[in-house]
Amino acid sequence: MSHNTFGHLFRVTTWGESHGAAIGCVVDGCPPGIPLREADIQPYLDKRRPGQSKYTTQRREADEVRILSGVFQDDEIGGQVTTGTPIALEIQNTDQRPKDYSEIKDKFRPGHADYTYWQKYGVRDYRGGGRSSARETASRVAAGAVARKVLDRLLPSPVTIRAALVQVGKHKIARGNWDWDQVDQNEFFSPDADAAKEWAALIDGARKEGSSLGAVVEVVAEGVPAGLGAPVYGKLDADLAATLMSINAAKGVEIGAGFKAAELSGEENADEMSREGNAVKFTSNNAGGILGGISSGQPIVARFAVKPTSSILTPRKTVTKSGEETEIQTKGRHDPCVGIRAVPIGEAMMACVLADHALRHLGQGLTFGE
Amino acid sequence: MSHNTFGHLFRVTTWGESHGAAIGCVVDGCPPGIPLREADIQPYLDKRRPGQSKYTTQRREADEVRILSGVFQDDEIGGQVTTGTPIALEIQNTDQRPKDYSEIKDKFRPGHADYTYWQKYGVRDYRGGGRSSARETASRVAAGAVARKVLDRLLPSPVTIRAALVQVGKHKIARGNWDWDQVDQNEFFSPDADAAKEWAALIDGARKEGSSLGAVVEVVAEGVPAGLGAPVYGKLDADLAATLMSINAAKGVEIGAGFKAAELSGEENADEMSREGNAVKFTSNNAGGILGGISSGQPIVARFAVKPTSSILTPRKTVTKSGEETEIQTKGRHDPCVGIRAVPIGEAMMACVLADHALRHLGQGLTFGE
Amino acid sequence: MSHNTFGHLFRVTTWGESHGAAIGCVVDGCPPGIPLREADIQPYLDKRRPGQSKYTTQRREADEVRILSGVFQDDEIGGQVTTGTPIALEIQNTDQRPKDYSEIKDKFRPGHADYTYWQKYGVRDYRGGGRSSARETASRVAAGAVARKVLDRLLPSPVTIRAALVQVGKHKIARGNWDWDQVDQNEFFSPDADAAKEWAALIDGARKEGSSLGAVVEVVAEGVPAGLGAPVYGKLDADLAATLMSINAAKGVEIGAGFKAAELSGEENADEMSREGNAVKFTSNNAGGILGGISSGQPIVARFAVKPTSSILTPRKTVTKSGEETEIQTKGRHDPCVGIRAVPIGEAMMACVLADHALRHLGQGLTFGE
Amino acid sequence: MSHNTFGHLFRVTTWGESHGAAIGCVVDGCPPGIPLREADIQPYLDKRRPGQSKYTTQRREADEVRILSGVFQDDEIGGQVTTGTPIALEIQNTDQRPKDYSEIKDKFRPGHADYTYWQKYGVRDYRGGGRSSARETASRVAAGAVARKVLDRLLPSPVTIRAALVQVGKHKIARGNWDWDQVDQNEFFSPDADAAKEWAALIDGARKEGSSLGAVVEVVAEGVPAGLGAPVYGKLDADLAATLMSINAAKGVEIGAGFKAAELSGEENADEMSREGNAVKFTSNNAGGILGGISSGQPIVARFAVKPTSSILTPRKTVTKSGEETEIQTKGRHDPCVGIRAVPIGEAMMACVLADHALRHLGQGLTFGE
Repeated sequence: MSHNTFGHLFRVTTWGESHGAAIGCVVDGCPPGIPLREADIQPYLDKRRPGQSKYTTQRREADEVRILSGVFQDDEIGGQVTTGTPIALEIQNTDQRPKDYSEIKDKFRPGHADYTYWQKYGVRDYRGGGRSSARETASRVAAGAVARKVLDRLLPSPVTIRAALVQVGKHKIARGNWDWDQVDQNEFFSPDADAAKEWAALIDGARKEGSSLGAVVEVVAEGVPAGLGAPVYGKLDADLAATLMSINAAKGVEIGAGFKAAELSGEENADEMSREGNAVKFTSNNAGGILGGISSGQPIVARFAVKPTSSILTPRKTVTKSGEETEIQTKGRHDPCVGIRAVPIGEAMMACVLADHALRHLGQGLTFGE
Repeated sequence: MSHNTFGHLFRVTTWGESHGAAIGCVVDGCPPGIPLREADIQPYLDKRRPGQSKYTTQRREADEVRILSGVFQDDEIGGQVTTGTPIALEIQNTDQRPKDYSEIKDKFRPGHADYTYWQKYGVRDYRGGGRSSARETASRVAAGAVARKVLDRLLPSPVTIRAALVQVGKHKIARGNWDWDQVDQNEFFSPDADAAKEWAALIDGARKEGSSLGAVVEVVAEGVPAGLGAPVYGKLDADLAATLMSINAAKGVEIGAGFKAAELSGEENADEMSREGNAVKFTSNNAGGILGGISSGQPIVARFAVKPTSSILTPRKTVTKSGEETEIQTKGRHDPCVGIRAVPIGEAMMACVLADHALRHLGQGLTFGE
Repeated sequence: MSHNTFGHLFRVTTWGESHGAAIGCVVDGCPPGIPLREADIQPYLDKRRPGQSKYTTQRREADEVRILSGVFQDDEIGGQVTTGTPIALEIQNTDQRPKDYSEIKDKFRPGHADYTYWQKYGVRDYRGGGRSSARETASRVAAGAVARKVLDRLLPSPVTIRAALVQVGKHKIARGNWDWDQVDQNEFFSPDADAAKEWAALIDGARKEGSSLGAVVEVVAEGVPAGLGAPVYGKLDADLAATLMSINAAKGVEIGAGFKAAELSGEENADEMSREGNAVKFTSNNAGGILGGISSGQPIVARFAVKPTSSILTPRKTVTKSGEETEIQTKGRHDPCVGIRAVPIGEAMMACVLADHALRHLGQGLTFGE
Repeated sequence: MSHNTFGHLFRVTTWGESHGAAIGCVVDGCPPGIPLREADIQPYLDKRRPGQSKYTTQRREADEVRILSGVFQDDEIGGQVTTGTPIALEIQNTDQRPKDYSEIKDKFRPGHADYTYWQKYGVRDYRGGGRSSARETASRVAAGAVARKVLDRLLPSPVTIRAALVQVGKHKIARGNWDWDQVDQNEFFSPDADAAKEWAALIDGARKEGSSLGAVVEVVAEGVPAGLGAPVYGKLDADLAATLMSINAAKGVEIGAGFKAAELSGEENADEMSREGNAVKFTSNNAGGILGGISSGQPIVARFAVKPTSSILTPRKTVTKSGEETEIQTKGRHDPCVGIRAVPIGEAMMACVLADHALRHLGQGLTFGE
């Protein structure tokens, strides 16, 4: 991954700041002939869109995506399809209310990238965090929608990529209650209906106090064939780790049993194999579907931890650009649990990494199954 | 990171299999004029070298590194220095005892990459795991030694990169007992002398039972200036996540508070800033020294979880290449806690990532210091 | 260079088709703090803009560039400057007259990319050549303007990058008549006023006949310090060759004496060195300012040949998508010598390559002289 | 292409200096299951090997290649095959006679990279040109042999990649005399038996005078299917231009009609298409088999100009490292026409570029039609 690009063959370059005219991305390497319209992308953006409940930021953005290149309305094919050339996606920034930036212009917000951007670049777009704002992730979600179409085209059977919130603050879901159908029925993408109720209270409490809560997101890809990934630095889990860790506020990533694997014995940890019909069956999935950096055919399971947003309504100690000690306090819009909106972003990153590796697999002269 | 290469400007390409003639790497992008001899690299390899205690594998390798290119003995400069051209490092494989491979040739060892390599490539070097063997990490450690020299040259003040084992199985060190001086005084790289004693018993027990234990490694870089890293996909933590996750047996990576950050409130998590002399001082380091993907000047703290080795002496259920159910049992050399030898590897990855980002910083037209 | 991206540290990704909504590019890796406004870019686009004389295509495009990201109006700095984040540049396509595409929809125009795009992708945006249209080069010219600003910032003394047309059809300039001041005083970017007159007649003749003429462009960069470039595959001349050859219609590239070097003896060819004040002086410049892939401090001289446009008004034999033999004839707008507008494009590519290598030089830990 | 690596999916990283212990390369991205032995590579190295006639340098090198990784002797498959992991190739330097380097240690040889390496790096391995020596091209030739095997595996029908010397000094072959069978029957790789005789005299004259001659090499790939290449910066011709220009002493590259295309009219230049059986047939090949950067199915034709070697026996004016004017004279081994040995190198570069693009084609989800 270079500065603002990720992927090798399914390559996504994003650009834009929180309060600039627009944000967007260029998706390069997409195979041709894949039906692609704005309507294929918009639902994913809608899922990530801010201002949808009192549990997330009140910034209001339509987040309408436009496809500016890389598709063609071919009447013979009978619709708009990709052409194999770069796909430019663009989203206007609409909610840029005139604001008083004097508070954040010269003060570094603790926990934010203000201080480090300034140390690195000597100049920073302080409006809403500029480039370091989570607004950038809208571009990822748009690219993820394209990646899903690519996977549909390339893989021998359908892949299901889903994510869910599995922890808010210290409260974790009950694994036994996992129900994918629940995920879209609550405002937290919780697979556990009971947990959703608890979180509603927890997050609303944090919101009223002007505080914030961290969270853990789990992303699962089912139907991925064995063989995706590559030794040694192109491991599927290494790429997942990089892309998930690159999500704003992420502080940890794990695959399968993850950190718990450190506590298991070799007997407990290594997933045994048996036969089921003509297929290989694993008796457990501590590996999270990846062995030696290559998919095993089991569901790919990744989790990432999201820290509580640092924009809280309590005054915090900090320093100014000129080095004086001071205090700072976030005013106005406030997001009590940024982890919620990280769910569709996690899905998008999984989709992009898988699309990239599907192409890389083909690009080493390999095929999928028969 | 492409298949067998990592880094953008400090680029390391590794090659070689566990039981081939040799392994090695090419380090490209190293600045010229840096004194570099085999003796600068060998001590790090010696630290990782197998067969040094009963707690690690009994394979015996001299692991002697040779520098085949990229250096020049310049009598005016008065020694052997890098020339700015690619540095080829090579290590012979010496302990390749003739072996009976019939057991692993057709059976997939659970928890290993046997099945996935075979699914992907249709052919695999089954001798000792081939390319997926941890033997590859010797090349990383050699490259890490070069990276340290690069950091010495580029950064305004010295960086200290150290790692320690902080957990074996379920037993964690007592943070209050942390003593870096202890790390080299026990066979486990433990910073807590008491923990080392506990682990000796734990690991010896596992060894006798033919079982194995997981572990957690913590890597700390002190003295890194603020400003290393890059938005958005070139984040320092994203690159650390990728390179640490690419280490054999790694299943999780975290930065600073890591997964614990999910349990903190915004007030608890965001590190406040104050002034100390002319410098900015943080009152805590939950961020692990990285904000928005860019170093803050605080120590950079990363941890990774290593699963218990899957090569255990207990029979395990598996299948053969032709799909028949069977059992497999590791014989001979056995490593009860591969996490121990992951310590110098973690250090090496941190050094390589920092060297790469130091060069990338300069390569965006930026400088260090005033 | 990957599909739609070139450069390593000064990275340009372009997107867009001839008759889509817009075209544009993302410039990543630009150092921060460089004053940059649309007005810095527009003059170069104006130079390339079509429809300015009867000697080039009559397509009318305002080619107005917008900067959508990567800059910030900083009142302390006192103007709009780059921030170190990706710079998105966008140009609307305005002259998209409704057209009858039935002629080119199913027939492959000889000399164009119609057949090969269709063979590769199975679908193509046939409107105006789609992605293969020279319209894409507007993005290059915009990126080149940014590259010039980067060079101004990075290099110890100013660089002058200029190009000129040195041959139209079989008619070459008289080298003795070379006058850079002439270049902007004729419609052909000719450094030789006499040649310009000849070419006016030549090109007007071709225009009236519906025919077309090839050309040769020479690009010269003066003031480039010694040391830019890199062994072995990162040679400055290798990168120039790639980027110049990637310009639409280019069929040849040469450096310094170029193909003539094959006819010289070793004595004639190798440029001798002497001293001039404290500097090294070369007695000739057959090397074109590059030795071993690295700049020598002499002017960098590159030339590229542009074939005559294949869109001519004469009927030409071709085949249809279904394989039937037929004829095709370009109608409407026609460009008798596309080489003219290649002049500002060649300059832009030189600027981009030099900016990239200036950053790569710094990114190997090197500096520019004192 | 980064510093010492070329290719995207078929990636070649070379290392080593003229007088170091060895040279070599790592070939990454090779598909698995391809039979590969040293004996597949050696014949190409033998063709490039120095010291084979009085017309080339008298340095004597066995140039024996060893495969150190990436292959596996699989008894079921019945031979040694690639495994999909990186292939390390190594060649010992054997002819390193002890030498007096005092002459070249402090003086810059005109036309060589001595001055520019020193300007860039401040240190240089002056023994035989170090990294800038044409000795590096042995690694390219070895990689090219692997590339040929990859093409055999991937492409639907066999590709023939051949090169020939078409000009020595001012003397060009007669195109009408072209006979591929001649190429291996003379010491100059001339396809024209008469030209070979002329060149024997020409080059022998230069050798006796201690002078040198330039040359032009033509590389032709027949049987390449339509569709290889990519817009816009990944054009097949752009990659050929880069790799051919990166060959030592290359000063110009052209595709198809090349610089002559500038002299043609649109009618003359654009190759018309007709039908031949079920296939498309072109009536000429001015395009050199590439349209819009993508192969058309016609033979791919590239030429590159090689300057006369700068190591001549005549004294030449130069300066010393400390800036004093002086003279320098090559002693000992001397190569009157380095263009001869550039022939197998050109073939190798063509093979590598095609292998890379064949993999990139597959890696965009495309196939090689019926």
